[in-house]
Amino acid sequence: MLENKNKNLTKLEDLGEFNLIDLLTKDLKIKHKSTIKSIGDDAAVLDYKSKKVLVSTDFLVEGVHFDLSYMPLKHLGYKAVMVNLSDIYAMNGIAKHITVSIAISNRFTQEAMEELYAGITLACEKYDIDFVGGDTTSSVTGLTISVTAIGEANLKDIVYRNGAKPNDLIVVSGDLGSAFMGLKILEREKEVFKVNPKNQPDLDQYTYLIERQLKPEARKDIVRLLKDLKVNPTSMIDVSDGLSSELLHICKQSKVGCDLYENKIPLDPQLISTCEEFKLNVTTLALNGGEDYELLMTISQKDYDKIKGNPNFTVIGYIKEENAGTNLVLRDNSIVELKSRGWGSKED
Amino acid sequence: MLENKNKNLTKLEDLGEFNLIDLLTKDLKIKHKSTIKSIGDDAAVLDYKSKKVLVSTDFLVEGVHFDLSYMPLKHLGYKAVMVNLSDIYAMNGIAKHITVSIAISNRFTQEAMEELYAGITLACEKYDIDFVGGDTTSSVTGLTISVTAIGEANLKDIVYRNGAKPNDLIVVSGDLGSAFMGLKILEREKEVFKVNPKNQPDLDQYTYLIERQLKPEARKDIVRLLKDLKVNPTSMIDVSDGLSSELLHICKQSKVGCDLYENKIPLDPQLISTCEEFKLNVTTLALNGGEDYELLMTISQKDYDKIKGNPNFTVIGYIKEENAGTNLVLRDNSIVELKSRGWGSKED
Repeated sequence: MLENKNKNLTKLEDLGEFNLIDLLTKDLKIKHKSTIKSIGDDAAVLDYKSKKVLVSTDFLVEGVHFDLSYMPLKHLGYKAVMVNLSDIYAMNGIAKHITVSIAISNRFTQEAMEELYAGITLACEKYDIDFVGGDTTSSVTGLTISVTAIGEANLKDIVYRNGAKPNDLIVVSGDLGSAFMGLKILEREKEVFKVNPKNQPDLDQYTYLIERQLKPEARKDIVRLLKDLKVNPTSMIDVSDGLSSELLHICKQSKVGCDLYENKIPLDPQLISTCEEFKLNVTTLALNGGEDYELLMTISQKDYDKIKGNPNFTVIGYIKEENAGTNLVLRDNSIVELKSRGWGSKED
Repeated sequence: MLENKNKNLTKLEDLGEFNLIDLLTKDLKIKHKSTIKSIGDDAAVLDYKSKKVLVSTDFLVEGVHFDLSYMPLKHLGYKAVMVNLSDIYAMNGIAKHITVSIAISNRFTQEAMEELYAGITLACEKYDIDFVGGDTTSSVTGLTISVTAIGEANLKDIVYRNGAKPNDLIVVSGDLGSAFMGLKILEREKEVFKVNPKNQPDLDQYTYLIERQLKPEARKDIVRLLKDLKVNPTSMIDVSDGLSSELLHICKQSKVGCDLYENKIPLDPQLISTCEEFKLNVTTLALNGGEDYELLMTISQKDYDKIKGNPNFTVIGYIKEENAGTNLVLRDNSIVELKSRGWGSKED
């Protein structure tokens, strides 16, 4: 799909690095006064005045984080930005700027890169982000994208992972597990395609799950909502590796324990029915799936009334003293230790 | 060399991502008050108060930017940081923070990563930099490093590429071409090694050239010196792609022309003798070699007395009106058009 079979497509080596950058960035418009100098010099110049600067960076590697046989390049560009903005929102900050570095092998054409940048540009438009720099280079094989997001916050508003206190409520935005189920569906379709390339897949019943995988949204709206509701979480993290892993990060850094209730974890109905079809345990997916990009936070009990009944938030447990351990309370009220499946095991 | 043949070495998959990050970053000490929150949360929190924030990012890709058969990992870590700091210095700013993202295949061991980080740490020590974040992920093949450098400057001190004026002097720090010649020597030794692995190379006569390739230094000292001398360049850029390419960037962005004098380009004696040995044109190397990480700047004629006779600076030409063109004045006083060899042609 991406190889240069079409003679009308432009090989990257014919274009040159500087021309490519000029071409890809020609439509970018500066949105923020704080962007004093954007692309085109050795460094971008940003003005954060009296606010604190937040910086986050992430790598997306072909064959590890994405598979181009089912991830359209435009979606990939969009997702690469989301993954990073999500980290800034998880600090209760507002993302303002990104830099994007791309290493590409010469199997990609100019038109493919334009697709990728279209996704990046769309994300920047939608989330009010200035694209201020980057690097484009060749690679021996594959596509690698590195995004750095830069944002701002007042010091008093910044929420770390280490502020959870015993009796705080554990709260999560949105629902969990669907992005990973979306990946499983796309992987299955890829296998079907290998056997029978003429098969027309009917994916209508999985729309939500696939969208969660291919076009995740970072929860800027939740940061705004928390501000409107005057809720300052005691700790916060975004759910990129999976609920259990993230909650354990909060507990470890805050030196606390927790009770997480299996029956409280928010699940989309499409996820539940698809898990039945795939004979997968829905809780396992929600705990370990990852890539949800929801915000997991702890809030003081006194703030409960402010979020009660708000469909954007679900209370899923309580913070306890450290010596109480990190517990998962199952549907039958039995208790098991909450475990992180950790790096590399996500694909099991 | 890097494969896990030694049973005592630790496979990365046995260690896990979070343990690896903890291990590699355990000796990092915070140097700046402005580092409010470093590694260990979703984003770093930095305090730049009333200064402007400078951000620069670069990718280093195995097989494209480095060859591990002659680039020790510690040097690679050091160089990855230098490449980025150099961009901040080229804005006449001071680098304060970096984030480092690394994608690695599982042919690398924990010990190999520790070597890489030792180089990064050394660079941070020497250049007074706080390492504040990053991402460590697996890759299908090879090693990719993405560094983002963040620095500060007062608005009035920042030097862009677009401020060169007719009659300004073109000035460069240090000498040029040696880093590329160092690469040519290392490539020759690799070929010799392939034919006769027992050959002991005698590289004593090339020490400077090889060091320029394997352990470049970013010119923080020049930024300080310019301040001490009260010289504010009218434009500046770091020499990463080669003198001709960088000077053309300045001319294009400043909408000016130039006369660059071949006989003024600063060359190390070791480069001159080695070019004779290799039957290479030393001017071609100095113009197109790249990776020198010297600072190329333009200064007003009124500042000439401040730099005159200073061994750190060489005047190599003059800025002219745009319609005068971009010229290289050869040793015989004939004039040719200055050309950039551009992306991908550096290895020719």
